[in-house]
Amino acid sequence: MDIPIPAGFQFAGIHCGIKNTSKNKDLALIVADSDAAGAGVYTQNLVCAAPVVLCRRCTPSDKIRAIVVNSGVANACTGEQGMIDAQRMAQLTADAIGATPEQILVMSTGVIGQHLPMSCLEEGIPAAAAALANSPEAFTDAATGILTTDQGTKVAGERFLAIAGDIRVAAMAKGAGMIGPNMATMLGVIVTDAALTPEDAQAALRAAVDESFNCISVEGHTSTNDSVALLASGAATAKPLTGPDLDIFKEVLKKVCIDAAKKIPADGEGATHLVEINVEGCATRDAARQIAKAVADSPLVKTAFTGNDPNWGRIVSAAGYADVPFDPNGVGLSINGFTLFEKGSPVPFDAAAVSASMKESFDVNVRLTFTEGRATTRFWTSDLSVEYVRFNSEYTT
Amino acid sequence: MDIPIPAGFQFAGIHCGIKNTSKNKDLALIVADSDAAGAGVYTQNLVCAAPVVLCRRCTPSDKIRAIVVNSGVANACTGEQGMIDAQRMAQLTADAIGATPEQILVMSTGVIGQHLPMSCLEEGIPAAAAALANSPEAFTDAATGILTTDQGTKVAGERFLAIAGDIRVAAMAKGAGMIGPNMATMLGVIVTDAALTPEDAQAALRAAVDESFNCISVEGHTSTNDSVALLASGAATAKPLTGPDLDIFKEVLKKVCIDAAKKIPADGEGATHLVEINVEGCATRDAARQIAKAVADSPLVKTAFTGNDPNWGRIVSAAGYADVPFDPNGVGLSINGFTLFEKGSPVPFDAAAVSASMKESFDVNVRLTFTEGRATTRFWTSDLSVEYVRFNSEYTT
Repeated sequence: MDIPIPAGFQFAGIHCGIKNTSKNKDLALIVADSDAAGAGVYTQNLVCAAPVVLCRRCTPSDKIRAIVVNSGVANACTGEQGMIDAQRMAQLTADAIGATPEQILVMSTGVIGQHLPMSCLEEGIPAAAAALANSPEAFTDAATGILTTDQGTKVAGERFLAIAGDIRVAAMAKGAGMIGPNMATMLGVIVTDAALTPEDAQAALRAAVDESFNCISVEGHTSTNDSVALLASGAATAKPLTGPDLDIFKEVLKKVCIDAAKKIPADGEGATHLVEINVEGCATRDAARQIAKAVADSPLVKTAFTGNDPNWGRIVSAAGYADVPFDPNGVGLSINGFTLFEKGSPVPFDAAAVSASMKESFDVNVRLTFTEGRATTRFWTSDLSVEYVRFNSEYTT
Repeated sequence: MDIPIPAGFQFAGIHCGIKNTSKNKDLALIVADSDAAGAGVYTQNLVCAAPVVLCRRCTPSDKIRAIVVNSGVANACTGEQGMIDAQRMAQLTADAIGATPEQILVMSTGVIGQHLPMSCLEEGIPAAAAALANSPEAFTDAATGILTTDQGTKVAGERFLAIAGDIRVAAMAKGAGMIGPNMATMLGVIVTDAALTPEDAQAALRAAVDESFNCISVEGHTSTNDSVALLASGAATAKPLTGPDLDIFKEVLKKVCIDAAKKIPADGEGATHLVEINVEGCATRDAARQIAKAVADSPLVKTAFTGNDPNWGRIVSAAGYADVPFDPNGVGLSINGFTLFEKGSPVPFDAAAVSASMKESFDVNVRLTFTEGRATTRFWTSDLSVEYVRFNSEYTT
């Protein structure tokens, strides 16, 4: 997949020694050539990592210069030393690129409860800064440096012609569930060469995340480190986007976020299906998402998908405990276009044909309809296979 | 285990033809010799079965005569015909024992979305009525008739001397999670020969259920049919219990409910551990239970227990997303008496020793402490093994 690389940024990804067994890349830098608008959306877990505390203070801003990401150690549950280490990462990055620490966003992902091996970062951050480049290869290096148990990079991008200029948006993400060996976290970094005000950047990111990274689930375990950041360099447009340009940008940003986010449950540990759950006819989008999440998180629903079983009873009963009021007699359900349930009652269907349609494709589509209003949502989840349990139970601290 | 059988009741459990493959018992009757106080607590799932709708209208009451339970078909998602069938079960039971339909509670458990084979019940209910007896054997027959995928009966009982008389309390329950082949539901029936007002019966049952059947989880999937009922015959006491007698009764009822409820996650599909989660130091009991449930339902926590892995990061981070405010710096955690986490930070511990203590026992104890108040809860959950996934994914509708 060719990712259009936005102007005004340089990227690097190297191995600095944190992942001392695998020798995989464990450090990424995303650097803006000059001050960029920066926005961030962070985990709602009360137990959040030091870098999350730091980033929350820094966004939104019109002066962000860089994001530094390490993988291998999450710097979560690490107390005061964790804050000192996160601040040191910001300082090292600022020194390496000629900025101040407040202009640096810090992200970490990996083992919870371990302190960062700071000597690796003392040497690694300047080394990464020396490798910075604006190229597809450097972008891929950075996208690789943020991974933990992922099976590969998760990137997405779009290019579109606005009135204000030719705009590129590119995203890198990581995450395959909060999966073991204590590995954690979903991270996302989106860069664009559009100019944006910090307020517009924050609003656009919040809206895009709500329909992408907040609509995915592997096992429903919210991590301590989840972070998504957007940097806008402004290299492609003279002024911040407004009017129709801003509206189009928001749609493109949402699409890029959805494309990147879907790759997370698709890479869910042991996943044999990526299930898209469409919930329609709800009073509010929050209600629709709450129902979608209850269905997506149910181990009974997930195991049914693993077995290619059109088990409508598990789906409808999961909707019923989502804590959202609805008329049970208005519920409808279809899987892969086959209607299984209508007006609150099961309808006859060819179970073998539905099961065959599930078996032949990695993607499965679920449509759950209500009669409460017009709000809808889309949600993506992995299924739950024997391999997931094996992977997550066979590791011992 | 010897269950003290309360006076004033008769029991029966037979095979009437619903489970036409296994030929196992599929019909149970619990009949009071005369009008009994009756209380009920039911599923909060919006998609609830016809018998639940019926029972909700009948309790609390001072005129309950019987509970009729069928297993094999849940009579859920069955529309108007489902209500007609549930009412017919009540009528058949009323006719067989000389009562009116309003005096009968109906419970069903089994496959969702199928209609009851009423011809089995037309013949079965009178046949069960003919087999009624006040004996341990008849009680066991009834406790067997309510089972679906359970590996054995789940019964509990206590006997105590009150000022008002010699009182017996006996419980039967079923459930092993809402597990596949579309099988569903937790059911509980508690009988006592104490006399109780309907209001006291309802309050005592509600309080006992809140600390027992509402504090267990296999996979967190609330069923369409969950029901727990208490019948008080009054055969052992001249008048309804009051004062200290009532207080003691409430404690005994809670103990019996806890004893019966714990047998459900212990029999959770593929369970290799029964995990008791003690949450302490919360502002309210609801807050404590919400945290306990988030921990108990996390597939990451459950798989860690399967692997005998003292993975405190998964437990602490699950508490963090329970949507209950707390000071992260006040959190403590121990497993089987070993302290792993204190004042929000990990402490050094002998991982091999903790893991060995988990491996050598079916029961595992978790203690999670906060600094928000004095409220506590206990919660019981099964772990998540490869066998659970295999069982729930290999079945096809």
